[in-house]
Amino acid sequence: MEEKRITSVQNPRVKAVVALQQKSAERRRTGLFVVEGRREVEHCVAAGMEVKELFVCEEMEAWNGGAVATNMTVVTKDVYEKMAYRGGTEGVVAVVRGRERWLEELELGENPLIVVVERVEKPGNLGAILRSADAAGADAVIVCDALTDLYNPNLIRSSIGAVFTVPCVVCESEECIRFLKEHDIQILTAQLQDSHLYYDTDMKRGTAIVMGTESTGLTEVWRKAADAHIRIPMLGRLDSLNVSVSAAVLLFEAVRQRN
Amino acid sequence: MEEKRITSVQNPRVKAVVALQQKSAERRRTGLFVVEGRREVEHCVAAGMEVKELFVCEEMEAWNGGAVATNMTVVTKDVYEKMAYRGGTEGVVAVVRGRERWLEELELGENPLIVVVERVEKPGNLGAILRSADAAGADAVIVCDALTDLYNPNLIRSSIGAVFTVPCVVCESEECIRFLKEHDIQILTAQLQDSHLYYDTDMKRGTAIVMGTESTGLTEVWRKAADAHIRIPMLGRLDSLNVSVSAAVLLFEAVRQRN
Repeated sequence: MEEKRITSVQNPRVKAVVALQQKSAERRRTGLFVVEGRREVEHCVAAGMEVKELFVCEEMEAWNGGAVATNMTVVTKDVYEKMAYRGGTEGVVAVVRGRERWLEELELGENPLIVVVERVEKPGNLGAILRSADAAGADAVIVCDALTDLYNPNLIRSSIGAVFTVPCVVCESEECIRFLKEHDIQILTAQLQDSHLYYDTDMKRGTAIVMGTESTGLTEVWRKAADAHIRIPMLGRLDSLNVSVSAAVLLFEAVRQRN
Repeated sequence: MEEKRITSVQNPRVKAVVALQQKSAERRRTGLFVVEGRREVEHCVAAGMEVKELFVCEEMEAWNGGAVATNMTVVTKDVYEKMAYRGGTEGVVAVVRGRERWLEELELGENPLIVVVERVEKPGNLGAILRSADAAGADAVIVCDALTDLYNPNLIRSSIGAVFTVPCVVCESEECIRFLKEHDIQILTAQLQDSHLYYDTDMKRGTAIVMGTESTGLTEVWRKAADAHIRIPMLGRLDSLNVSVSAAVLLFEAVRQRN
């Protein structure tokens, strides 16, 4: 039987949580990941994910676990701080079973609005894109040829839980392009060369906004598959915007046009 | 006479750089700050700032200092890594004399576009706002009742040098409001309550977009001074956008309307 209170940072369950926080290979091997914060855990549950373990710091949080259908373990502050990546004062850490989604599962309304992210390197940027996609009411975020897993702690943190509220699919670029074309969703690639100003481009019909890596932009596969290339004008002295900022500017232009 | 090559991390000049990186009080006391990266140093020089010391890592960079009118000191890799906050592979660190700007110095064209930031807490967010302000061709960023100094290393890093390319002024809110009203610049405050959708608001005339803190938003002083309250629609399950993302969405709506 598992203990209901953990007081030692040497406890194997504590070590297992730390390994899931630090190693993507461990997340892949087990299918599990770690979520911190009460609201984030609630978003997981609402997204139909299974909370396997719930740890609450005895000195920080009076939360009773709410609707989380699992046994709760109370931990001391030392143990909590060992397990928590983000820190802060919430005192809630959960081990959750990830749920992989497939393109075919996406429920798309009329004129869907989708963000496609090709090979983005920084988990924090992908998390920020997810947060903006949630705010803009996007139907899905599709991550192609991923360089980070969706359950990286930096990604979860910067998404403030949007990784659970926005349908996310990880797949290959070719697969994604085929899917978009089959569903008659226009492909707008964000790139500086050979492009139109984004606000001169009609985004009222089904639209996928495609963003490339921070360093080298989109690959040829996407540039060729595009229905139009779009750019945000750079009116200053520097030559680029942050990729998550660009995604938000483009997403909200679609929102504006559709309103 | 100062040495032309530093090999010891105990060297007092190295310790002075580390203190400037870590302590805002030290930056205030001396009027100096640290800039990393070749392009960033060049932006400083272009902005008329004085480079007091230039350190180049002997194993990393063949840069000859370009147009920087100062003596160059070569440092070993150990010494460079001790001084550099950002790390990375550029191998250039400079000590620069800051230049305070005043509202009266701002050169405003017709129908200026200004971002005002009240009490933003995170240097990284302020840096990101500066980067977007550069891209949108904003005339100035005004920081009211500042909680961070403009030369915080996190701010410089996330601005990728925009803190040197965009005119920045630090002042009190009352002073800023008086300045905007005197120059007939409309004040649009970003807030969820009692507000219009941002894209229904005319931003073609002289406009200041005013952003509040990440946690509590704008103070009453700004809400009362506003010509209009504007909001970005939140169409998802979460209730807020990142402050730098919001600033970019609003800035580029002004760009769109003015085009």
